Amino acid sequence: MKKYLLTPGPTPIPENANLAMMKPIIHHRTPEFANIFEEVIEGLKYIFQTKNDIIVFAATGTGGMQASISNFLSSSDKILVIEGGKFGQRFSKIGKSYGLDVIPIEVEWGKAVDPEIIRQKLDSNEDIKAVYTTLCETSTGVLTDIKTIAEIVSATDAILVVDAVSALGVCELKTDEWNVDVVISGSQKGLMTPPGLSFISVSEKAWAKTEDSNLPEFYFSAMQGKDKLSSFNTPWTPAVTLLQGLNAVIKDIKKQGLENLLNKYAKLAKATRSAVESLEMEIFASQPANAVTAIKAPQGIDSQEVVKYMRDELGVIISGGQAQLKGKIMRIAHMGYMEEFDMIVAISALEVALKKLGYDLELGKGVAVAQNILFE
Amino acid sequence: MKKYLLTPGPTPIPENANLAMMKPIIHHRTPEFANIFEEVIEGLKYIFQTKNDIIVFAATGTGGMQASISNFLSSSDKILVIEGGKFGQRFSKIGKSYGLDVIPIEVEWGKAVDPEIIRQKLDSNEDIKAVYTTLCETSTGVLTDIKTIAEIVSATDAILVVDAVSALGVCELKTDEWNVDVVISGSQKGLMTPPGLSFISVSEKAWAKTEDSNLPEFYFSAMQGKDKLSSFNTPWTPAVTLLQGLNAVIKDIKKQGLENLLNKYAKLAKATRSAVESLEMEIFASQPANAVTAIKAPQGIDSQEVVKYMRDELGVIISGGQAQLKGKIMRIAHMGYMEEFDMIVAISALEVALKKLGYDLELGKGVAVAQNILFE
Repeated sequence: MKKYLLTPGPTPIPENANLAMMKPIIHHRTPEFANIFEEVIEGLKYIFQTKNDIIVFAATGTGGMQASISNFLSSSDKILVIEGGKFGQRFSKIGKSYGLDVIPIEVEWGKAVDPEIIRQKLDSNEDIKAVYTTLCETSTGVLTDIKTIAEIVSATDAILVVDAVSALGVCELKTDEWNVDVVISGSQKGLMTPPGLSFISVSEKAWAKTEDSNLPEFYFSAMQGKDKLSSFNTPWTPAVTLLQGLNAVIKDIKKQGLENLLNKYAKLAKATRSAVESLEMEIFASQPANAVTAIKAPQGIDSQEVVKYMRDELGVIISGGQAQLKGKIMRIAHMGYMEEFDMIVAISALEVALKKLGYDLELGKGVAVAQNILFE
Repeated sequence: MKKYLLTPGPTPIPENANLAMMKPIIHHRTPEFANIFEEVIEGLKYIFQTKNDIIVFAATGTGGMQASISNFLSSSDKILVIEGGKFGQRFSKIGKSYGLDVIPIEVEWGKAVDPEIIRQKLDSNEDIKAVYTTLCETSTGVLTDIKTIAEIVSATDAILVVDAVSALGVCELKTDEWNVDVVISGSQKGLMTPPGLSFISVSEKAWAKTEDSNLPEFYFSAMQGKDKLSSFNTPWTPAVTLLQGLNAVIKDIKKQGLENLLNKYAKLAKATRSAVESLEMEIFASQPANAVTAIKAPQGIDSQEVVKYMRDELGVIISGGQAQLKGKIMRIAHMGYMEEFDMIVAISALEVALKKLGYDLELGKGVAVAQNILFE
């Protein structure tokens, strides 16, 4: 059975990236590697929309999340964390493991945080050192209003850290224009490369914080990374082939143009949302991101069964809900190497699975709605 | 833009075959190669449904067609050729290039030959040495009734040669049970391997003809091939990596089971035909093969424009008409590494292209019909 991977990471790998990773392995202390790394760094700056330094780790997204805490803070520092899903919660877990004073803002899953609450918290806690949030909370499909939050945080001494692991290159994020201090991402979502690379961009304001930081950290040391960056190298062994693959992806993204790419994802997401609504189902997120669409399972249908049927019987792999959303939502990704017909396949398969599981729908109805939006 | 290859050859290559072809190249005069070649020959016999010898050439289908003439005939021999399309005509061209006396049976393109006409020709020309026809005439999508023709030819001294290049492993062909003397195929259609391999199966009756044959032939000598077959090797350098790829495909076909595979293609073809009819278009072939569906372009629409729009704007690559059918038909393949969602993509894209080119249709109508058949 052919497989169609439509999960919110890993995403399918473009042929060019796979071919680049099949090239003979090279050593990392060579001019050849430095050339690739320079292109990668410059490309990432284009996609991050920043002039800030970008530090690359051989790690997955959570490694970058740890780095965004361990490099900039000291024992018992106070941090504000927006907890609107599993990935917001992860920041709190990491912060607590470092002994920080974590102030959570608990947001109902599926809802977006009200930036005014962040302002109030910062006003009443002037010693908050950093604010942690997600661009797209992958577990709920919610988009956070980073622009407004950055306006609030940049007026204080705190730094703003944004987990853009699942949404970089998919949802708009103007790192410099909006004043976001640290942006975290990974290779296996919008960057269409296998898992194993994580990145953080670091603003001047954030670099200043590293000087006082006393948290223990070695592997994810941003300062060590910065030292080596000037010669386009890394302090420890980098993930060479993944960087070769990423470089191929970056070249393709530059060719397409970031704006065109973001517009494409907006169209894929809109078509999916409209198709879902035409089948009389609801979108879970109040403020949906274009990276992933979370769909409420219809009354009486277990979303895990839908995901299982699609995977085992149709070869179409989407995600279900995590934690308290288990059984309640289906998540179809738009991020990464995704195009119009991927959405046609996903919606067609969703229709078939729901019908098999007893949901009363007319096959093809959602597909027709999607076709009209995707190809208008 | 992602590409979806739905042409009647080459067909997409399964991942396992691509991976097998990426293995280190081996030398062909080794036990390692002989093991692979033995597996390939046994697998081909399973798919050809024969106990006859199978000779493998490093060539594409037309090489096998030439071999099916040059090995079994002598100067000025009389042969009967069913010309119902471009590939039937090719037999006549090869026969004439060898100075044979070619008796064509011209069949209106899109129609199947009436086996009674073959019986009459054989009755009135007792010196006909061989009858050449196609299982699926790829240019028109017509299926030939090989079983009935074989009943007629096997009662004479003539051998029956069937071009099954595009239909082996896709449409039913019981080589031994039906008494087909020579079956020709190639790697790049139902066998899902890149172009470069051609095969002929040779019955005892056909082998007997090689003894008197005086036509010049060296590269495609079936006798030379047979000599080496006992040690699972080839007289000249074989196409090593293609055989590695084919071996991977054969293992997968055996696992799936030939009958299941044929049933799958029947379903894909039926869904496509029904979808096309629901869009008020006609199937070109009076007796359609499950390997490829030829669709008459609607009044006022040039099929070349449909093919071009699908290819350039949607990345969905189907074929148009050849020779006198240029501009008049679109051909969507079902052969090879094709599954249900490939048809959903093809039909969805066909709808979009036709609508853009001014044909009045409701997007999603054909897709819904196909969904109901594919997933019932």
